[in-house]
Amino acid sequence: MRIRIFVCLKEGVLDPQGKAVERSLHSLGYQEVRDVRVGKYIEISLDAPSRPAAEARIREMCDKLLANPVIEDYRFEIQE
Amino acid sequence: MRIRIFVCLKEGVLDPQGKAVERSLHSLGYQEVRDVRVGKYIEISLDAPSRPAAEARIREMCDKLLANPVIEDYRFEIQE
Repeated sequence: MRIRIFVCLKEGVLDPQGKAVERSLHSLGYQEVRDVRVGKYIEISLDAPSRPAAEARIREMCDKLLANPVIEDYRFEIQE
Repeated sequence: MRIRIFVCLKEGVLDPQGKAVERSLHSLGYQEVRDVRVGKYIEISLDAPSRPAAEARIREMCDKLLANPVIEDYRFEIQE
């Protein structure tokens, strides 16, 4: 299975990288851009006996290593 | 419109961050994980008169600032 994981700062948590990208886009002439948020995109290949088993393992990995649950949210998609 | 942009190193380009994450997952006991790639996930709000107009603007932004076309691929999704 191929897994795509998206990790983003929670709503309300200041995102300085997003603000920097937004300012850069504005200075390049893209004034129509708003609310830029920058996060991580992680692709993983995984061997798991079933989809629920994979989901449980991925949730563990995210909570332990891939995301910081205090300030970050994550979601993922599974492709078989 | 809300745009989600995914930027990843091209196939064949060495991804040291992905390798580091893979090793960390293995050392935490997730031996079933392979081929980890780490990229950027960018969310943007955009005002555009139409979907094709938005697509053209986003492609420009990616080529100029958000991705390095020499070593990175990008794709995006538009939600209206």
